[in-house]
Order: sequence, then C-alpha cells, then structure tokens
Amino acid sequence: MVNFTIQNVLIAADDDYATVDVQIIDGAIAAIAPNLQVIGTPIDGKNKLLLPGFFNAHTHSSEMWQRGIMSAFPLELWLAELYDFAPLDPEQVYLSALGTAVETLLSGGTSVVDHLVLIPGLELETIAIATRAYKEVGIRAFIAPLIQDESLSAGIPSGESAQTHEPYFRSTAATLEIIEEAVRQFHRPDEGINILVAPTGIQLCTDALFTGCSELSDHYNLCRHSHLLETRAQEKLAQEKYGCTAVEHLKRIGYLSDRTTLAHCVWLNDADIAILAETQSTVVHNPLSNLRLGSGIAPILKYRQAGVNVTFGCDGASSNDSQDLLEAIKMGSILHNVTDSNYQNWITPRQAVEMASLGGAKGLNIADKLGSLTVGKQADLVLYDLTNLSLLPRTDPIGLLVLGRPTNVVDSAWVNGKQIVADGKVTTINVDELRQELFNRSQWETKRKSESVAQIEAHYRTVMGL
Amino acid sequence: MVNFTIQNVLIAADDDYATVDVQIIDGAIAAIAPNLQVIGTPIDGKNKLLLPGFFNAHTHSSEMWQRGIMSAFPLELWLAELYDFAPLDPEQVYLSALGTAVETLLSGGTSVVDHLVLIPGLELETIAIATRAYKEVGIRAFIAPLIQDESLSAGIPSGESAQTHEPYFRSTAATLEIIEEAVRQFHRPDEGINILVAPTGIQLCTDALFTGCSELSDHYNLCRHSHLLETRAQEKLAQEKYGCTAVEHLKRIGYLSDRTTLAHCVWLNDADIAILAETQSTVVHNPLSNLRLGSGIAPILKYRQAGVNVTFGCDGASSNDSQDLLEAIKMGSILHNVTDSNYQNWITPRQAVEMASLGGAKGLNIADKLGSLTVGKQADLVLYDLTNLSLLPRTDPIGLLVLGRPTNVVDSAWVNGKQIVADGKVTTINVDELRQELFNRSQWETKRKSESVAQIEAHYRTVMGL
Repeated sequence: MVNFTIQNVLIAADDDYATVDVQIIDGAIAAIAPNLQVIGTPIDGKNKLLLPGFFNAHTHSSEMWQRGIMSAFPLELWLAELYDFAPLDPEQVYLSALGTAVETLLSGGTSVVDHLVLIPGLELETIAIATRAYKEVGIRAFIAPLIQDESLSAGIPSGESAQTHEPYFRSTAATLEIIEEAVRQFHRPDEGINILVAPTGIQLCTDALFTGCSELSDHYNLCRHSHLLETRAQEKLAQEKYGCTAVEHLKRIGYLSDRTTLAHCVWLNDADIAILAETQSTVVHNPLSNLRLGSGIAPILKYRQAGVNVTFGCDGASSNDSQDLLEAIKMGSILHNVTDSNYQNWITPRQAVEMASLGGAKGLNIADKLGSLTVGKQADLVLYDLTNLSLLPRTDPIGLLVLGRPTNVVDSAWVNGKQIVADGKVTTINVDELRQELFNRSQWETKRKSESVAQIEAHYRTVMGL
Repeated sequence: MVNFTIQNVLIAADDDYATVDVQIIDGAIAAIAPNLQVIGTPIDGKNKLLLPGFFNAHTHSSEMWQRGIMSAFPLELWLAELYDFAPLDPEQVYLSALGTAVETLLSGGTSVVDHLVLIPGLELETIAIATRAYKEVGIRAFIAPLIQDESLSAGIPSGESAQTHEPYFRSTAATLEIIEEAVRQFHRPDEGINILVAPTGIQLCTDALFTGCSELSDHYNLCRHSHLLETRAQEKLAQEKYGCTAVEHLKRIGYLSDRTTLAHCVWLNDADIAILAETQSTVVHNPLSNLRLGSGIAPILKYRQAGVNVTFGCDGASSNDSQDLLEAIKMGSILHNVTDSNYQNWITPRQAVEMASLGGAKGLNIADKLGSLTVGKQADLVLYDLTNLSLLPRTDPIGLLVLGRPTNVVDSAWVNGKQIVADGKVTTINVDELRQELFNRSQWETKRKSESVAQIEAHYRTVMGL
C-alpha cells in the first residue's frame, strides 16, 4: 500500500477553511495539520479542496442502458416500460457498472450502493459481474441485489376492483437462498465489496421476504436497503395491503434498523417520520428521479428536524438520467427551500456535504470508519481543483461546489488510500475503451411503444383518479 | 462571411431524427436535406446533433462575482446581502460578462439576455463594457440595463406598520435619459447587440418609470424585460401598492406586450395567467434561482395550457450559482412533474428544446429570424458531440441532452453564421486567460455578516409571518 502526504490543501474547519497537510499511512488518515513531515509520495494540494468521498447511496447501474429515452411517466408506468425494453446480458451489466462507477467517481463519490437488477436465471452471475466491475474501478461498492416475490402488476393499488396477479416466477425461499449464496461468495467488506439484503419494497415483496432478509442481515451482519413510499400509489397500496402505513408495518415486522437505508421516502406522515427517527433508519434522497417521475418532494427538512439521518443518491440512470452526484446534492439541497418559508431551516452547502459523506457512512453503519476527514478513518478522499472555470471567481469553495454546476473538477480520488483518479482521469480502467463499447453496443432511437404500459395504463388512471 | 456545409448531421424531424446536410450561406440557413452539394467549408456532422442555439433569457452577468457565497436567504434578504458585498468596477463587469457568455455558449446558448446591473455614476460605461465583452465573444446579446426609481427598502411590504423609504438617488427622468442615450449608442440589432428597456419590477419602480420605458420601447422598437412576482412578498406588496395584482396593474399601464419578457412569474393567479396569454407576454422561467431563494415553483404547466409562451433563464450566478443553460432546461422541465399528477401534461425533452430556442426568439420578437432550423433563418446553431460519455449509451439524443447531465458536449457553435466555438473551445477569446484573471481578482472567503440584512431582517420576518 502506497503512503502519501497531501500538502497545502484546503479543508473545511468549523465555519472556515484551513490549509493543512494530510498524511495517509496504510490506507488510513494518520495526521492532519499544517507543515507535517512528508511520508511517502508528496501530493500537491495547492488551490485544491479535500473532502471525504461522497456516497451515491441509491442507484441501479444497469438502467444506464435506458437513459434519455424513457417516457414521461409516473413510476408505475415507467417501470412497466422499463421491463419491456431492458432485457440485460452479462456484458451490459459489466459495462453499465463501470459507467456508473466512473460517473460517480468523477462527481465526488467514492462509494456506490447499487440496487442491482438481476438477470433472471443468472442472479449470482450478475452479482459476480458487478463485483468484478467495481473491483476493477476500485470504487467502494455496496451491492444490493434487487429482489421481490410478487409480480409487477401487484405494485399498483387495486382500488374498487378486485385484481388478481400472476404468482412470481420463483419462491421466496429460493430467492433468499440466492442471496445467502451471494453473501458467502462476494461479501468481503475488507476488500471494499459489501452485499446488502435488498427487497425492492412493500409494493412487490411479501412479509416472508422482508423477514427472511432481516434474518440474513442479523446472521451475516449485512445492511438492509429498500425503496420506501416513492409514490402516492404506494401509499394507497400499503393501506390496501396492511390497513396501516408502510412504515408502521415495516416497524412491526422488524425491518427498520440503524443499518437500514430507505430510498425515496416521499409519502410519509409525521408519525412515520417519528418511527424512522426512533429506529435510526436512514433516508436516501433521490431528488432528480423524484422530480423526473413526478413522485413528489420528499419532506427532507422534516426528516432533519426529527433527527432522521439523510443522505443522497442519483437513482438509476433511467429515471434521472445521469449519475452525477454533485447534481443530486445540489438539487437535494435547494429543492426544499420552496417547502418551508423559514429560511433558517434550509440546508446549507456544508450541511449537504456532511449529509453526502457522513450521512452515507451512518446509513451503512460504518461511520466509525468512513465519512469524514478524521484521523484514524479510512482514506476515501476526493481532491477538487479550485482553479476550474466552473468554480471561479473564488468565493466559498464548498458553496461553489454544491450550489454551482462543477464540470471536470475532481482532480484526484482515493479509496482506502489507493488512488483511482489522478489529474482528472480514472487510472484503473480505460475510460475511452468503455466509451467506445457503450457507443458500439447501442443505437440512436426514438420513442417506443410499450405493450405492458398499454395493458395497465387504463387501470392506473382509474385508481389514481386521473 | 464564411459559408459552410455541415454534413451527415442528426437533426430532429417530427417525432424522429434525420441525417442531413445543412448549408449556411451569408450567415443564414440556405438548405437542409440529405446529400447536398458542399458550399464553402465542409464540417463533419457525423455522430453529432444539430440544434438551434438556445436563449439564456434572464441573467445578471456581474453576479458571477458573488456566486457560491450568498447566504441561504429569500430574495429580499439575499438582495440586501448582495448590495453590501457587490460593489463593482468596470474590469469586473467586463470579466463577468465574458464568463457568462462562455458558460452560456458551452451549454448550448447562443443568445444571452443580460439584465445588467449598472455601476452608479458609470451607467453608460457599464453598458459599453458589457457590449464590448459580448462582441468579443461573439454571442448574440440582449443587454437590459437594470433600472429602478425607488430605494431598496421599498421592495418589502409594509404590513401593519407605516414604513418610510429614502428617495432614490436619481430622478425617473434622468434614468430614462440614460437608457435613451444607451439605445442611441449601442442598440445595433444587425450587429448582434440589442438594448432592452428593463425596469427591475413593480417592487422598485414607479408607474412613471414603466410608462417611460414603454414609450422608449415603442419609439425605438425595443423589447421590454422585467422581473415579475418572483416572491410571495412581492405579491403582498402589489396589493399594498395597487390594490390589485401586479399583472392587472401592468396591463392597465400598458407594459405587457408581445415583446415583453417577464422573469420568474411564480405568484400569479389564473386571471393573471389569462392576461399574460391575452397580451402575448413571455414568461422566463428560472427554476434554479426560484429553488435556491425559496421563491416557489412557477406554474409553468398552467402557462403552457393557457397558451403563454415560456422560455428559460439561468438567472444571475449569485442565485443559481451557475450559468449552465442545459441545467436550467433540465430542471425547468422535470420540476413541474410534481405539480400535476397527470403525466400527459408534463414537458417532454423535445418541448423543452423548443421552449429554449423558439420560445426565446418569440419573447424577443425575432421568431421570424431565429429559434429553429428553418431555411431562411439566421444561423445561430449548436452542434453537440454524441460520443461523449455523458451522452452514452446511445438512446434518444435530445432525451440524453435534456434529461442527462451533459459535460463538455458542445462541439461547435455559430452565431449569425460565424463560428465561435470549435472542437469544444471558444475560439474568439482566450478562456484560459479569463480563468486566470477571475482567479487573481478574487479570494476564498467564508460567510460574511451583512449589515443591511441586520437592519431589515426583523421587519421582513414580521411582515412575512415568520
């Protein structure tokens, strides 16, 4: 492992900035102070800002193949369209995991939570391929294999009409066995690869699946990851299914915990919010996809006031349609100013940085090891070039980074002390080859007609009162 | 003037794309069809998308000096802070106009409406300097010198308390004389420089100023540009001032017209919207600053349904804090999906492109000359590189451009047939020198204490019920 010392770099200090040296020894932050002895390789930090790496705390890497083309639909119809047009092969899984890692890294993220869509029949292979891609790039990966045990149509409320749904193609037990095998084969936290239990959400999962996941989580010490109440339709569905809110139900069955991260959380009431706080669950805010799909504005300021931990995700690139974490952080901060006229509650750029770094680490139960520039923590670091035109004129570096629209500003990134971005380029894989592969394996298209949407749209409109 | 032919380029055609050649002769689009004869310089359009240049239809260039550092405040307090920390000198005006032009160009804009803050006592010089900067870059400029004739504190509603305000330092007549002189000296539409009459808004302008501006507009055939109902405070203020809505009042005094562009328009009611439609006024939507300042979400879908023309602006970089037009177009499209559950009303990427191009041209009363790829129109064009990683894998080019987070995708740009961006670089000025100047004339700072805010904050909180 290569030791190094970043010299004369700006870091955030209280309400101000300090110029310091940062020593990294054996992959950990060994010292932070002015004028330190140079240990290992010297790195010039002049006119640069050093921050802890951010977490892209919710995405679906393979959605990259459908970005830019999905119709202007709410989640339920959008998902039906996605199912029609997103048959995946292993090579696509590999390339889109690489692409997601690269875009995350070049926008300040050193960790990615991939709520990974599995190829039916090739579930373990899908996980193996994503693992390989993330190891090659060197980004810290939290692979959350997306599972369900109900068929797609069950995710839409029935309303007045009785609806029947085809059974899911695989049993709950068989699905849980796949996840347990994935944990045995791939869960290697010390090597930067983590497997999570990740039932997609109450809309497509039985209690048996949630409970089985909780048991695996307890047995193997795994984090838990799910979608939660992304849409108004899901709020209705929870009432139909449980006669109570989804949050009340998930609490009752023991799924909520201090290592549970919940993507979206748009349609929670005040009692639900209190439950998230009490169970120390984490909300992953995906502002871009919530807007794109018209899901709503998650009550993020309320979460913060209730003491609920919040961090940010890009969500999959079919619903965003980018993996730029700085964009998600900007929008996830300023969006909420229109929900509360008392500006003293608004999220400041420094708070946003803490949410994106320490907030992510807390959600994944590793805040003792990651998420801040603290001596003893692992060196997942990002160095930003403050001489870039998009960060000029010079004012407040963190304000410029969060509120501006930074372009090509990540100079260097390290994960566990290993440099994987240098001079603005990913050093571990050939990004130009990746670009060429993505180009060659795709073609320009226009709008397509989704048969699945045609089948469910009338029912969706009726039940949602449209 | 150099003639040229773009070969084998993708253009939008109905609901699809076509690969064509585009001939540009004497600064105008002469022909669009497959396999044309090459006239003048051949330009390789392969794997590129050609669109009409967009309009950055509302900004304040000099705010670039305060970007990234302004407090999380609503407009009224933010403006007080801005006044305290933004004394300008001519060199700053020059550099920030260059910077605004460059960022606009590199995000697809070929026209900029600069609601230009004037240096007191150096008003004509300020306009001269901005004119020089825009001519040097070659971007089409609509310079709207920002004028008012009431002092800052008059912009906050009085509420129950009687408030008195210092008179403005210059008479209405003297201000109008400055604008008339600016028109004589700088208004040269054929050279790409236009002067607009631009009273800042009802919050700081008397009827005499609006009426004087309308007269200048009629006499010299000038477009009109103002802020309108950006905040809830302004809605209250209009009722205090006029006993009716601001829109009703502006209609009554004859300010609204088919060459009037109105920035923000967040707090309008249905009757107001009908008036905008009837007067053929244009709304300039600035989604980023509306969020950043907590102003609210402008009812853009309602405007579109009422037949009101809408286009996009970045707004000044102290309230955004970037000048990336693609970011404004993305947010200005998807933001509104949360305001209407009927997804059939949502703005599609193709509609967004039309709003950003033809919508801008309509607002500035030049839709006969600009805003679309139409034979006979002037060649304000942008060529996007579709092989950039941020636009891959290939799907729908316009979807990727509008919904993604494109980075370095503008390959070339022309204004009136003159190329001013080539190979992704601005060719008319030395951007690296600009970057160095912006760096040298600024310093990293942290939060500052605004005395003006301290003076007005208590009153603001009281009158706004905070």
